[in-house]
Amino acid sequence: MALRIIATGGTFDKQYDPLTGNLVFRDSVLPAAIERARLTEPTSFEPLLALDSLDMQDEHREQIRAACERSAETQIVIVHGTDTMRETAEVLGRAGLDKTIVLTGAMVPCRIDGSDALFNLGFACAAAKLCAHGVYIAMNGRVFAWDDVRKNRGAGIFENTR
Amino acid sequence: MALRIIATGGTFDKQYDPLTGNLVFRDSVLPAAIERARLTEPTSFEPLLALDSLDMQDEHREQIRAACERSAETQIVIVHGTDTMRETAEVLGRAGLDKTIVLTGAMVPCRIDGSDALFNLGFACAAAKLCAHGVYIAMNGRVFAWDDVRKNRGAGIFENTR
Amino acid sequence: MALRIIATGGTFDKQYDPLTGNLVFRDSVLPAAIERARLTEPTSFEPLLALDSLDMQDEHREQIRAACERSAETQIVIVHGTDTMRETAEVLGRAGLDKTIVLTGAMVPCRIDGSDALFNLGFACAAAKLCAHGVYIAMNGRVFAWDDVRKNRGAGIFENTR
Amino acid sequence: MALRIIATGGTFDKQYDPLTGNLVFRDSVLPAAIERARLTEPTSFEPLLALDSLDMQDEHREQIRAACERSAETQIVIVHGTDTMRETAEVLGRAGLDKTIVLTGAMVPCRIDGSDALFNLGFACAAAKLCAHGVYIAMNGRVFAWDDVRKNRGAGIFENTR
Repeated sequence: MALRIIATGGTFDKQYDPLTGNLVFRDSVLPAAIERARLTEPTSFEPLLALDSLDMQDEHREQIRAACERSAETQIVIVHGTDTMRETAEVLGRAGLDKTIVLTGAMVPCRIDGSDALFNLGFACAAAKLCAHGVYIAMNGRVFAWDDVRKNRGAGIFENTR
Repeated sequence: MALRIIATGGTFDKQYDPLTGNLVFRDSVLPAAIERARLTEPTSFEPLLALDSLDMQDEHREQIRAACERSAETQIVIVHGTDTMRETAEVLGRAGLDKTIVLTGAMVPCRIDGSDALFNLGFACAAAKLCAHGVYIAMNGRVFAWDDVRKNRGAGIFENTR
Repeated sequence: MALRIIATGGTFDKQYDPLTGNLVFRDSVLPAAIERARLTEPTSFEPLLALDSLDMQDEHREQIRAACERSAETQIVIVHGTDTMRETAEVLGRAGLDKTIVLTGAMVPCRIDGSDALFNLGFACAAAKLCAHGVYIAMNGRVFAWDDVRKNRGAGIFENTR
Repeated sequence: MALRIIATGGTFDKQYDPLTGNLVFRDSVLPAAIERARLTEPTSFEPLLALDSLDMQDEHREQIRAACERSAETQIVIVHGTDTMRETAEVLGRAGLDKTIVLTGAMVPCRIDGSDALFNLGFACAAAKLCAHGVYIAMNGRVFAWDDVRKNRGAGIFENTR
């Protein structure tokens, strides 16, 4: 079955700007990451947004929801910033689309040594293929239901709310 | 639930020897790979073997089967060479253990630019958590049942036999 | 002849902090970088400071000058932020020490993909071995005298002033 | 002054072939390595050969000598396998060209974690700019005259013969 991977920004996709010394968004790193994965089934990539998740507003979440709704693929991985991943998951969860939607991201940008990005992308792709329709967050080697997850910012990990 | 990751060697774990110019086995790269994954659930690592899969004999497959049988964890990822991954999967499949066992590996060593190793490890960990008890191969972003998979060596990919 | 490498911070040594999303200083990356270089002559490493060069004050430059003065080695490489590398070079140049002192740094941190750090370190080490006593900046594959160099911040390069 | 960088193969440029599991030559990694160096002076790159240095014959050394002779640039870096780097240096040394020619290479391929390639390239470029006309080997953070160097294969290092 075909998979759609949607980029929305977040730490996963941050790149270093030598002139300012800041981490910024340029062309997404996801096409190169996907190529490394040596996938043999059709996979489409959609560079939808390039935002820090703290900058994500209701209108952006509506864009993400619309992208999921119009996706021909029913297995969707969304690469998203971690700080408001839960909020976007909630918007998608309440939308009740008949698809498997998995949000993931990274604590260390894909292009920095020691990043969790590729592991998380692989983990999320498997979750998108194997989980029942619904909305999930895949981080820290765990799959969370959208309505039972929060980011513990002090520890830098995702955990259950219940 | 707890996960066990078992190293048996294979391309995933190959490292460069500056003196001979060969790719060899040294201390497994898996502990560093697992640390990058930022897992929050208990995960045990077992460095069982360090073999090219073409060098793997019946006795080694029996060692792997025994390691799975005695594992306290029921979710097991085995990192294995790709060339005879199917043969080991068959031995494990016929053993009928009441566990979820997922074999994975890499087409490019973890420590070489552009490797698929971390993606595959993430993919396999999710499969080990989400699949029913049984034996699977997770490669190329797909989950294969142990009795319906082969490596197409010319193309360097895994595919169904049926 | 023996070489001394002194860390003072700067982009070269910046590392990513997953909790804040900022680039910060931790234990210097230089010991690992030096190990990769496979040097066969005695080389000492001194982690003197860990500062953005924009935060470097007169007192810090005095510390760097004192470190160069007391160095038993007469070939010295200083890893420094690029923004005020010229100012530190001037302090060292005016001090007139009877040593070869080469300042270098990086436009992209050593631990980020595509970094110029290791090339620059190698270039600076050769300059420290081959140049007459004096103070130099080694960046962009060039060796600049301390009194004929500036950073062009718009272009992100070092160039002559004359 | 302008610099010419000539690729002849060697460990520096070896890349992994996923289908055979061997380290092979493909398009040289040097253009990407040079781009990372952020050089601001004209630098030309010549992909002359792609050989293990153990496979290098007299005719290949003659090709390298001819490439140095016709080079418009008088500062030349040659990236070469380490095993017969000395032999090629001798051919070039005896040719007595009025240029500065520096041979370098790597003990670990550029695209493998922990490589010395970028350090060595930077070190060799500085040597090519700073040394008097002649032929040199730059390895292990040292500059050797062509007629006073050998590779100690047991230790994997270059050392003087006298």
